[in-house]
Amino acid sequence: MDLLQEALNSITPLDEKAMAKAKERQDQLTKPAGSLGVLEEISVQLAGIVGNVINDVGNKTVIVMAGDHGVVDEGVSAFPKEVTPQMVANFVNGGAAINVLSRHVGAKVVVVDVGVAVPIEDESVISRKVRSGTANFVKEPAMLREEAVKALETGIEIAYQQVDDGVNLLATGDMGIGNTTPSSAILVALTGRPVDGLVGRGTGIGNGDLDHKKKVITDAIDLLKPNKNDPIDVLAKIGGLEIGGLAGLIIGAAARRVPVVIDGFISGVAALIANRINPLCKGYMIASHVSVEPGHRLILEELGLKPMLHMDMRLGEGAGAVLAMGMVEAAAKIIKEMATFTEANISEKEEGK
Amino acid sequence: MDLLQEALNSITPLDEKAMAKAKERQDQLTKPAGSLGVLEEISVQLAGIVGNVINDVGNKTVIVMAGDHGVVDEGVSAFPKEVTPQMVANFVNGGAAINVLSRHVGAKVVVVDVGVAVPIEDESVISRKVRSGTANFVKEPAMLREEAVKALETGIEIAYQQVDDGVNLLATGDMGIGNTTPSSAILVALTGRPVDGLVGRGTGIGNGDLDHKKKVITDAIDLLKPNKNDPIDVLAKIGGLEIGGLAGLIIGAAARRVPVVIDGFISGVAALIANRINPLCKGYMIASHVSVEPGHRLILEELGLKPMLHMDMRLGEGAGAVLAMGMVEAAAKIIKEMATFTEANISEKEEGK
Repeated sequence: MDLLQEALNSITPLDEKAMAKAKERQDQLTKPAGSLGVLEEISVQLAGIVGNVINDVGNKTVIVMAGDHGVVDEGVSAFPKEVTPQMVANFVNGGAAINVLSRHVGAKVVVVDVGVAVPIEDESVISRKVRSGTANFVKEPAMLREEAVKALETGIEIAYQQVDDGVNLLATGDMGIGNTTPSSAILVALTGRPVDGLVGRGTGIGNGDLDHKKKVITDAIDLLKPNKNDPIDVLAKIGGLEIGGLAGLIIGAAARRVPVVIDGFISGVAALIANRINPLCKGYMIASHVSVEPGHRLILEELGLKPMLHMDMRLGEGAGAVLAMGMVEAAAKIIKEMATFTEANISEKEEGK
Repeated sequence: MDLLQEALNSITPLDEKAMAKAKERQDQLTKPAGSLGVLEEISVQLAGIVGNVINDVGNKTVIVMAGDHGVVDEGVSAFPKEVTPQMVANFVNGGAAINVLSRHVGAKVVVVDVGVAVPIEDESVISRKVRSGTANFVKEPAMLREEAVKALETGIEIAYQQVDDGVNLLATGDMGIGNTTPSSAILVALTGRPVDGLVGRGTGIGNGDLDHKKKVITDAIDLLKPNKNDPIDVLAKIGGLEIGGLAGLIIGAAARRVPVVIDGFISGVAALIANRINPLCKGYMIASHVSVEPGHRLILEELGLKPMLHMDMRLGEGAGAVLAMGMVEAAAKIIKEMATFTEANISEKEEGK
């Protein structure tokens, strides 16, 4: 059996017993029941994922998957294609937002080249290039189906490696100039919704370019007719390599019962693909922020995820996800370190109130 | 001149030049302009507050002001009054949510007794008791005007002491069983809005008790007729000592040009009082989370504050504020540590896009 199928088969539902125990403990801690809101919910979810009430999620890694997009030739992005490898170099040198934020929360940054168009020589980048960028999907499929599967399996392997190295909290990050175009295209194809309201400005294109971006997406879907009931077909025809890599990372995290924090729009599309392939995946996902990209809310809705951070971010890289990792760690510490009413000798809520 | 007036007179508008310089630097950093959203806005605000583009906000302290409320005799709270000193002891012992979250973000917790009903002996609590709890404001004013001023001045003094000790980021926290009742009463009095839609369940009272809580507030306002144009009159008649202490803390922070992160509903009411006394205060405030208490959104709207965290919290203690302190620190690090396009040799946005 191949790696993808093996990973998908090994994903199980969350541990309901551990979740009930975590909920019970939360209600004994010195605070009104439920008053820590999402922090309590996350601690219960972590219990369901790991199978224990008390969990350490301090070994945190954000995986930044990088890839290029042939469709950038259509003029859909505000930045030129060479920025993808330039930003990969910036990640390696520690000067990008994801580096600063990861240092701040104590997370490791792992950069994976799944499909940058040019060679990346740097040793500290994990070299797993499936192909040198996708094809321009207005003219032909972005990649072959086998390449899409390979991107997914790359993500699974990266997840497994990280977990084997002791990582207990993963986050998704992306780098790929132009990647809001394939992401929006995937969203349109998978949901069947119109491009208006789902397609946004990415790194900041103007009105005319936005209309053009919508047309590019509509034309590509008309030409290639991706099958909405086959997420891998959609990924192959109008997707991206880093999007596939991230979907695989999420599948791998779920297979190994490790929580994975989902960044913004691009990561959200990857999460949607993972969940369409196996709907048990969403139990392992923790939403971070709600992006400015208009399609993001629809994704969160379908996945039933509530983003903690409302910070008008639209960077990608995993920037929102690493900030949310700090919140997940806080949730794990709350259930571990807070005193109970009995321990602290505190009067409980009055009956009938 | 008294301390309150001196502090109010020394508050100045934000430094527009420093803010323009910070904005300019943000646009040179290796990300699409504006793509870090609120993190960028905070870095600009910090520049305006401190007067420098690069700022260290790593010396973080949350001030938890504790006080009791005579109106608890009316049965407005789900928890008995003795929980206030019990929770103060929990803070001292490090077992409360605020302790866990403050350790997580590296903030110090300072607990101030501004008006707990019973004596607090613990040395690690700053003893600044203005009076032993407020009076039951359904029957008589919660406190004298001089006591309200003393509570405000206590907060100012605490802010000054902290700043003198090197603290460069403050946060507000509260502890006081029953304090959503005076807070809601203040909000109703200051805004003239009806109780419906502004008064919430606090630590978790049922429907019948919620109606009773609204009646208590309406009766108190009818009896005492607080002057909505005189925030100190409102604070004295239907307020609380910890609420006054927190309003003073905010005034003190603004007077000393130190950013102050505002927690949830109780702290929000304190921020509203501070800002009604001197509308320059709001420039120094950073919103943290949006509370479940229904009146909180109205406060944020009047202050023009955007909460970063949407986590369904309703605990108080400063729990949301310390989590947001981590975000403020992240914002300060972004503008300090990120590489510029020139430094990283990265192509900028294409013209006309």
